[in-house]
Amino acid sequence: MTKNNCGLRHIVVMWRVKVAGLSLVAVSLSVELLVWLLRRLRPRKALNEALFFPSEIACVEHIFTPSSPHSCVCFLPHGVETSFSRLLRHILSTSSSLDLCVFAFSNMDLSRAVLALYRKGITIRVLADKDYTAITGSKIGVLHKAGICVRCNANSVHMHHKFALVDGRLLITGSLNWTLQAVQGNMENVLITEEPDLVQPFIKEFHRLWVLNDPAQCPKPSDQKPTQVFTKTSN
Amino acid sequence: MTKNNCGLRHIVVMWRVKVAGLSLVAVSLSVELLVWLLRRLRPRKALNEALFFPSEIACVEHIFTPSSPHSCVCFLPHGVETSFSRLLRHILSTSSSLDLCVFAFSNMDLSRAVLALYRKGITIRVLADKDYTAITGSKIGVLHKAGICVRCNANSVHMHHKFALVDGRLLITGSLNWTLQAVQGNMENVLITEEPDLVQPFIKEFHRLWVLNDPAQCPKPSDQKPTQVFTKTSN
Repeated sequence: MTKNNCGLRHIVVMWRVKVAGLSLVAVSLSVELLVWLLRRLRPRKALNEALFFPSEIACVEHIFTPSSPHSCVCFLPHGVETSFSRLLRHILSTSSSLDLCVFAFSNMDLSRAVLALYRKGITIRVLADKDYTAITGSKIGVLHKAGICVRCNANSVHMHHKFALVDGRLLITGSLNWTLQAVQGNMENVLITEEPDLVQPFIKEFHRLWVLNDPAQCPKPSDQKPTQVFTKTSN
Repeated sequence: MTKNNCGLRHIVVMWRVKVAGLSLVAVSLSVELLVWLLRRLRPRKALNEALFFPSEIACVEHIFTPSSPHSCVCFLPHGVETSFSRLLRHILSTSSSLDLCVFAFSNMDLSRAVLALYRKGITIRVLADKDYTAITGSKIGVLHKAGICVRCNANSVHMHHKFALVDGRLLITGSLNWTLQAVQGNMENVLITEEPDLVQPFIKEFHRLWVLNDPAQCPKPSDQKPTQVFTKTSN
């Protein structure tokens, strides 16, 4: 009996050790699973950025030619990160498509950025205001001549938007018209976001306006103004 | 021995039942903990909304007098939810403070909304563009006469912002000036967000501009234009 009791005690102790071991394994597995699930379920934080203007005046040549950042010898300050350089970088980050819907577009650096993207093979669509397009200094004609697909509003008082959609992913919008005065003179804001709840409605609205201002869809072509020569239907 | 063996088997079976029970309890507790943690760690989704204009023209009387929504007998469509009615609702949702930074402000309904909030005791600060303030139809003078604290920009070409901060929590911004033409005529956008990464920089910028345009802080009072009679330093 004593031998049996010893054996029994031994078995009980062993079981207790096994239970403790199993519990430890269960706890460590649960913690690992929890960490893995949290990593999987927590969404990647969307980019949200606000820029304010007037922007500090600085050379932006290094943004256009990152391979030779010290090549420019102009008199402006170099290597300074400004609201405008941030805006340029976001636009130049486009890798597949750029949709622009801008009331006033006369800024040379922004025009240069759009043309550089176009030469890289980026799909670009521009919706412009018909009245502002006709103004001296507007870059809409330059973009059109380069081959970029441009449409102008036909029916509304003003196409007063100032937004861009980068790769259907990033929204750039705000009060800032794409002019030198807006960038260097005015108090303005630009908001940059990847938030899908904000980006998606703008994509939908761009598509709606793009179709709406397609001359092929217009019931009365005779109503269209001369500025609509900038319209292409190939995109 | 047979009796002992039976007792031993019984103990082993009981231990196995206990282990199985403990495992079930451990699993259910882990699942409960996981659900609780996920609920705690997943942040409340911030409001993000995009409105597009021109807005459908409809009566907004029921928004100002929600207690008697059918009192208006005007000829406009009633009970229609439009971009403009959404914008009005967001502004009228203010419960403690409203900071406005708007280039052009001539819209009667928006002016009525701001005055209604002021009469309810809401703290209101308005930053306006000095040139647009002097234009016939601007509501900035009306707001100032009612006692609302208004400051105008002194140094920049244009104070071209069009944003509002509701209770330091909600940002309303976009291309839309607070005019009738913008609301009913133009293609415009308004973006409404609670996203702290977007709201906080606008709060900071408003504060910066508010201090910058405080006449008491200006080094050269003689430079200030007549429109700055709208400036109050009491807030």
